[in-house]
Amino acid sequence: MQTLNRAYFEALDRDDPLAAYRDQFDLPAGHIYLNGNSLGVLPKAAKEKARQVVEEQWGQGLIRSWNTHDWIRIPQRVGDKIAGLIGADDGEVIVADSTSVNLFKMAAAAVKLNAGRHKILSEPGNFPTDLYILQGLEQFLDGQVRLVTEHRDSILDAIDEDTAVVVLTHVHYKSGAMFDMAAITARAHEKGALVIWDLSHSTGAVPVELNRVGADFAIGCGYKYLNGGPGAPGFLFVAKRHQAQLQQPLSGWFGHANPFAMRDDYEAAPGIARTLCGTTPVVGASLLEVGVDIMASADMHQIREKSLRMGQLFIELIEQRCSQYGFGLASSKDPAVRGSQVSLTHEQGFAIMQALIARNIIGDFRAPDILRFGFTPLYVRYVDLWDCVDALVDIMANDHWDQAAFKKLTAVT
Amino acid sequence: MQTLNRAYFEALDRDDPLAAYRDQFDLPAGHIYLNGNSLGVLPKAAKEKARQVVEEQWGQGLIRSWNTHDWIRIPQRVGDKIAGLIGADDGEVIVADSTSVNLFKMAAAAVKLNAGRHKILSEPGNFPTDLYILQGLEQFLDGQVRLVTEHRDSILDAIDEDTAVVVLTHVHYKSGAMFDMAAITARAHEKGALVIWDLSHSTGAVPVELNRVGADFAIGCGYKYLNGGPGAPGFLFVAKRHQAQLQQPLSGWFGHANPFAMRDDYEAAPGIARTLCGTTPVVGASLLEVGVDIMASADMHQIREKSLRMGQLFIELIEQRCSQYGFGLASSKDPAVRGSQVSLTHEQGFAIMQALIARNIIGDFRAPDILRFGFTPLYVRYVDLWDCVDALVDIMANDHWDQAAFKKLTAVT
Repeated sequence: MQTLNRAYFEALDRDDPLAAYRDQFDLPAGHIYLNGNSLGVLPKAAKEKARQVVEEQWGQGLIRSWNTHDWIRIPQRVGDKIAGLIGADDGEVIVADSTSVNLFKMAAAAVKLNAGRHKILSEPGNFPTDLYILQGLEQFLDGQVRLVTEHRDSILDAIDEDTAVVVLTHVHYKSGAMFDMAAITARAHEKGALVIWDLSHSTGAVPVELNRVGADFAIGCGYKYLNGGPGAPGFLFVAKRHQAQLQQPLSGWFGHANPFAMRDDYEAAPGIARTLCGTTPVVGASLLEVGVDIMASADMHQIREKSLRMGQLFIELIEQRCSQYGFGLASSKDPAVRGSQVSLTHEQGFAIMQALIARNIIGDFRAPDILRFGFTPLYVRYVDLWDCVDALVDIMANDHWDQAAFKKLTAVT
Repeated sequence: MQTLNRAYFEALDRDDPLAAYRDQFDLPAGHIYLNGNSLGVLPKAAKEKARQVVEEQWGQGLIRSWNTHDWIRIPQRVGDKIAGLIGADDGEVIVADSTSVNLFKMAAAAVKLNAGRHKILSEPGNFPTDLYILQGLEQFLDGQVRLVTEHRDSILDAIDEDTAVVVLTHVHYKSGAMFDMAAITARAHEKGALVIWDLSHSTGAVPVELNRVGADFAIGCGYKYLNGGPGAPGFLFVAKRHQAQLQQPLSGWFGHANPFAMRDDYEAAPGIARTLCGTTPVVGASLLEVGVDIMASADMHQIREKSLRMGQLFIELIEQRCSQYGFGLASSKDPAVRGSQVSLTHEQGFAIMQALIARNIIGDFRAPDILRFGFTPLYVRYVDLWDCVDALVDIMANDHWDQAAFKKLTAVT
């Protein structure tokens, strides 16, 4: 292993084909932001978009903007753009509601499509809201289905003829561990089960090829790697072959075949639009579009390459410079099964992360002992990794951390 | 009946105690906007709020703003402010999701609370998304409950011992007709049924006293009279006495007792927060707060008084000046059962409304023949009514309307 130094990282930045993207984002001065896996940063163009949507479209256009600014088609339009990022076709992805609400719709629909089967399969330690939503569905259906969680190492074997749907997060929020989407989808189909992939930590971070692996359903988050803004709407994917049969219980008027006919009886829209529920959150969805546009203009393979190199270099830096400080590695060293983040463990992880944040180096902490560092190739520089670890060395070597000194940061993934 | 003229309306504006509110809104020049019952207008302060939330809170604060700008408490904080507008207490109202999603949560919860009863009661012609959501629930619960619709004149008699929950819109979106909330709630309770009131066309428009009438649940819209912006989040109300028992199926992580402990098992938050699902839509909810703040600063009785006077005068103007043109009145002349709008019927209603809109007088049309005129006392002037009817007279007298000349406006209530 070569000995790393700052000049080496500077050189990587000079050669980085994605380097120019950083200028499209408005980062706070003097910050190193390694938390784009939790909340992405502000695209500069989103400032003008917010002004346009609020002042012109809403303020001046008022109700007419549903047509004149095509508010009515935002869910489909932005959905089609996201489709291009995850290997889906036009008309298979739509922007709506939150990730949690979208999971409820997809899981309820999958259970109906696979009626007679009794098992929803997931893993313990999946992102909490996924498990909570599935528990809500289980309770609501009063024993028709039950949620079973199996450790990821035995998940393939746990898929059986009684499995209605498998619900897994492609890239794990804590460890960054990545499932083999193709293998699990294939096994599920072999057993007659459906799969819902949660792409919250994948979309815009790692290549995803939903149709290549024959995926059924997916959901994802707008405010992480897509840089859509805090609490941006989520999205969902339904493979074309499932759309005509799909029934989802949140059958609000925006999912109606003819919403403005104002009829008494629900009739599902013919395609992906049947997954919509209430009125589109116009401002949030418009800001999301800005982030999606930037991501869609970038080369996902360059993103993945830079992300993996960053992960690799970060691990090497920790090994070379922090070996004596008691950190563990919670992410795999194998890039094939690692998303766009590296997680360390340390028993004083919370206090250490607070000390980094106090220096405007922002990663995050996940109980009980995980420090997460997210690598978002469009705006994080290689040299940021050097500077981050340099600060970490100083913090550890000089005891610049103190649990009592920092108020607990409410962590939001 | 006195003969009305423009000077009379100008005098009313001079004496209007609410007149100064108009200056808090950014109305397009030369427009008369009588569609605030569909999409409210832009508060001037929302422009600066959008800039702050996007540029400072998101752009500079990033993930830290969940604490430093208290994003985490937005649903409760704005909910408490709305509570003051509808006769609820602190901790009984929360901002979340859309009106449609919130109805699903409330209806599902009510059916569970009243398990063993089989009927969800509503009226035909209720706002479509309400019926669609109830149909989705019915289908999803596979025959456990069925939706029954009864004409509003016989709704009281239709509430029986098998009724789990009554779901009605307090002020009707088309006619503006207003239910007697106290009488229906009392009858429902007498029969052991629960009631969900949809306050979409009530909140900020007419006085509502949820706790005085002993209401159980309510939902409402953020983008109409609350001026929260297009697709603003909705809100919901759960009476304190129901909160501890309430189970709702959209049990996402924001409704967890301790969301950031990231545990595998759902545990509902103790109070109203258990009705939350996914991550708060920060930008939309922040803009909603601006509109709510303005509404909360106004005197609801003055609003109601002006609204009723406007309705009365509008009807008189139509009677005095348009009697020969074939308009019918779809709203009641009795102010006690009329919300903050007056609806007319005309067989050429669509074309007539388009002709008004072409003159920047914006009401809206609801199939098959309804012209809706909404009166929002905080920014509509008395003289606007005169000018609206004056334009209408010109349109009718001189045939300045032509169905073919206007592209259909997609109407969004």
